[in-house]
Amino acid sequence: MHAIKEILNLKAKEVEATLEELMNLREEIAPRLTEAMKYTLLSGGKRIRPVLSLLTVELLEGNYQAALKAGSALEMIHSYSLIHDDLPAMDDDQLRRGKKTNHLVFGEATAILAGDALLTYAFELLSELKIEPEAKIRIIANTAKFSGYQGMVGGQILDLEAENKKLSLEEMQQVHRAKTGALIKASVLSGLYCSKFTEPEKKALLNYAENIGVLFQIVDDLLDLTGETEKMGKVVGRDQELNKATYPKLMGTKAAQKAAREYAQKAAREYAQKAKAELKIFGDEAQNLKDLVDYILNREH
Amino acid sequence: MHAIKEILNLKAKEVEATLEELMNLREEIAPRLTEAMKYTLLSGGKRIRPVLSLLTVELLEGNYQAALKAGSALEMIHSYSLIHDDLPAMDDDQLRRGKKTNHLVFGEATAILAGDALLTYAFELLSELKIEPEAKIRIIANTAKFSGYQGMVGGQILDLEAENKKLSLEEMQQVHRAKTGALIKASVLSGLYCSKFTEPEKKALLNYAENIGVLFQIVDDLLDLTGETEKMGKVVGRDQELNKATYPKLMGTKAAQKAAREYAQKAAREYAQKAKAELKIFGDEAQNLKDLVDYILNREH
Repeated sequence: MHAIKEILNLKAKEVEATLEELMNLREEIAPRLTEAMKYTLLSGGKRIRPVLSLLTVELLEGNYQAALKAGSALEMIHSYSLIHDDLPAMDDDQLRRGKKTNHLVFGEATAILAGDALLTYAFELLSELKIEPEAKIRIIANTAKFSGYQGMVGGQILDLEAENKKLSLEEMQQVHRAKTGALIKASVLSGLYCSKFTEPEKKALLNYAENIGVLFQIVDDLLDLTGETEKMGKVVGRDQELNKATYPKLMGTKAAQKAAREYAQKAAREYAQKAKAELKIFGDEAQNLKDLVDYILNREH
Repeated sequence: MHAIKEILNLKAKEVEATLEELMNLREEIAPRLTEAMKYTLLSGGKRIRPVLSLLTVELLEGNYQAALKAGSALEMIHSYSLIHDDLPAMDDDQLRRGKKTNHLVFGEATAILAGDALLTYAFELLSELKIEPEAKIRIIANTAKFSGYQGMVGGQILDLEAENKKLSLEEMQQVHRAKTGALIKASVLSGLYCSKFTEPEKKALLNYAENIGVLFQIVDDLLDLTGETEKMGKVVGRDQELNKATYPKLMGTKAAQKAAREYAQKAAREYAQKAKAELKIFGDEAQNLKDLVDYILNREH
């Protein structure tokens, strides 16, 4: 675990430097827009998505620089989604990574446009990748698909709709798959298409991505739960059971919370196990991707 | 003029049918999102951007179906920009093409996400064009560039910033070039890259696009002026001169309005003339693109 943390830190720094370089915009016409884009994009974070592209391209010994740029484009898409999600009309969040959210600093209009610009710039960057045209088009197609109506944006709508109703476990998983899992898949695929690969390798990596997508979201929810226990029912999607509790209110809630937490922790361990098992065909070569799973499982923030 | 109107109507209908077909979404997960996307995208309009792609590809005898799809993708980008521009935090508009604006029908959160989804879907569609990979990548690159921070989105920020200050004619033209002109350029370029072309042909068509971009915006402003004369100062960007008027308030404003209107009309005629002159190298073959200029110059809505 110590080694992987160091590797992830180094990769995150590499991504950070790349993002800064990419944000030295050519032909900038509106400095305030650039400032707003940078504010959220360059505010740190674990950079899990580009790191996934990098670990994948390393495993397959592909074009590292291309994967770095493709992963950075995906981080821009992640960043735009955070800016839009935080808007008053959406989650109305005040804080993000310990800083005021984008719209609180730049105003709603600029925040909306900064998100739009980051999303658009991501596709401009992907169009510039120095790889085979066909592979580049696959990356663009996958990125659009996994971040659009059938991926991240679709998941965001489902998530908003879920606020006023009770979801089954299956429905909640669909939200997670779309909202978080899709972009994680796109990250692994971007590393893949910057490399040569066999079909079984592609399948294994896609299944790996699928499992860590779910894992990532469960751990996120558990961390949220530790901070704000009231949210627990929604977090693990077991509102129905909670409503049936017949214990005195506080105790009942606490007992149900504990049960739900344990249920989620067990699920997380299972998804982590499945993710690692998918990498069997790569042998020891995939150690970093495996360690990343444990890192995600055990992360504390 | 009669002939071009009929041609434009036919093309607009073709675009309409294509957009409807493209909005039969595969893998839809959130029907409400699709509904919101369709609401604005399929609410009519002149479809000038895709029509430009089509007239260009016809001139160059390129791949018509590809230009139809590329132009439709650009119309989605235009449509997303309308949805976001109409939001309360931006222009706070209530009506668009005689219908309630998107956020009034679906709520702000869904409207924001419908815009995001249309933008993303546009790139997915471009990645599917059945043309040479290199040409497809050029279209994707141009579309991203002309609709992003150095194009449409950048222009939108400048436009918002302009609301509280006085612009010089030059500054106003920069706003127009970015906000409207860039996407019109992308439309012509999409038709171009679906075809074979020479460098002088490309240059001529780019200059044509540049001039009709400005023309389009001036006519838009003039039409706005006819409807709401109070906005005139902002509309033709000559606040400074107006503020200097020493006539009694009402008369002074009216006289200045008339002068400004005549100035804008003269400029429109000049840009129209320049746009048509750029097409000289194509001879009679470019008649439709030339007639389109007059149509834009003389349009009444």
